[in-house]
This record gives sequence, C-alpha cells and structure tokens, in this order.
Amino acid sequence: MKPGVSIPKIYDWDDRKGPKPVDPALDGLVRDIIGKVADKWTMLILEALSDHGTLRFSEVGRKVGDISQKMLTKTLRQMEEDGLVQRVVHPVIPPHVDYSLTEMGGTLGAAFCDVWLWAEAHHARIEASRKAFAERNGAA
Amino acid sequence: MKPGVSIPKIYDWDDRKGPKPVDPALDGLVRDIIGKVADKWTMLILEALSDHGTLRFSEVGRKVGDISQKMLTKTLRQMEEDGLVQRVVHPVIPPHVDYSLTEMGGTLGAAFCDVWLWAEAHHARIEASRKAFAERNGAA
Repeated sequence: MKPGVSIPKIYDWDDRKGPKPVDPALDGLVRDIIGKVADKWTMLILEALSDHGTLRFSEVGRKVGDISQKMLTKTLRQMEEDGLVQRVVHPVIPPHVDYSLTEMGGTLGAAFCDVWLWAEAHHARIEASRKAFAERNGAA
Repeated sequence: MKPGVSIPKIYDWDDRKGPKPVDPALDGLVRDIIGKVADKWTMLILEALSDHGTLRFSEVGRKVGDISQKMLTKTLRQMEEDGLVQRVVHPVIPPHVDYSLTEMGGTLGAAFCDVWLWAEAHHARIEASRKAFAERNGAA
C-alpha cells in the first residue's frame, strides 16, 4: 500500500460468515460505484476529455480509438448519469451536442492517474510475466 | 488533474485522423493492461489479498462477496498471468492452493487507492446526480 494511505475499510471481516459490511448501504454504494468507474472505457473517455476539454460525440470516439458507437453511447450516458460528464445540446441548425468533464469527473480522472502511471511503468514486467506463464502452462 | 501529475501522454493527437500513437507497441500494451486491470473484480481481489495476505480460493471468494466461481477463477488466472498474484499449490493430502499478492500486485493495489477514496468521498454526490438525471429524463 501507498505509505500513509490504505484502502478505506468498509468491511468488518468475519471469517466464518464472509464479508459483513459495517454499513450495508455504504458497502453497496461504494461497490456499485467501483463497478461502474473501474472500467477501461470510462478511463479512456476521462483521459480524452481531460486532454481536450469539450468534444462532440464523434470526436470523443476518435480520441478513444477502437470503441464501438454502442459502447460509447452507453458509457457517456452512464458518466452523465453519475455526474462525471456534462452533455450540452446546442439549439442551432444543424443542432449539435458536446461533452465535457464536470469538476467531479476531473477529480476521478486525477484519481486514476496512478493507475495509468502504474501501467506505463510495469508493461515490460507484465509482458515477461505473461510469457513465463505461457511457458509454465505449455502454451509457448 | 492532480497537481504536478498528469496522465502519461502516450498519444500525439491528430484531429483529422484520430489518435496517432507515438509508439504503437506501447500504445497497445498500455491499453491492453488498462483493459484488464480497470475491472471491478480485479480491484476487489486486490483489496481482499492486500487486507488478508494469503488466502485459499474459497476464502478469496468469500472476502470479495458476490463473485461467481467462474468469474473468480477467470480473474485470478488473469492476475496470475499478469504477475499480480502468486498461486501456490501445496503438495499435501488433501492438496490445497493458495493465493497472495506479488510485489507488483501490491503496487497496483496502491495505485487504485485514490479511486477507492474517490468513490467513498463522492457517493452522495453520485446518488444525487443519478436522481437528478432520472428526473430530467422523466423516469422518476
């Protein structure tokens, strides 16, 4: 763990009965939030909007890269619902819609920084580990 | 973004042509790694092993909570392949297998700390945002 910081303790473990949430409502909420934000598309969209500010739908897709229209629509809608992304419809002709991070979305992007840095710092070790795993398991 | 830290720039954006990776191999690797670790089950298993040290398969499942056996098997195997988890088979009768974090797994757990803290700090605002979204969209 990071010095001085530990993962928040939301559980009071009971070995015989499994996890016993300290506060079942908070437990459910935090897990639900983690289940939605711990997602690669969410991370890539946060990065795109953080780097580029306001983008139209098709621009978000281009910045993210290989995302399908369906997944882009679904992820942006979820992010809007959770208050991470602001969607603005401009009543012009032809109308257009753009997306930007809310202040809360910006703070989540910042929270994911260490995970990006970790992935960049460890990719060679992960590759070596995958190769060793394949060799141990007779696949190479 | 966090003061003094920004998301690593692995892309050199070209607005007309979409993302143009500075180094396509690094681009693919970092995205692949994010795609695997940015996953709620990975985060919950990292938390369980970080809190409890070495655990048997069934214990990991109990600590994580509502994960299926199939998803637990798949996620632990992926984490072993990537070098995040060490799997030890004890040649005793009856044999048993246990799991613990590698040093690299520990550093990823630490990298996710800020995301846990973020989820805990923002759950009330996210709930409020979801409620407002449902009202705007006529679902409440």
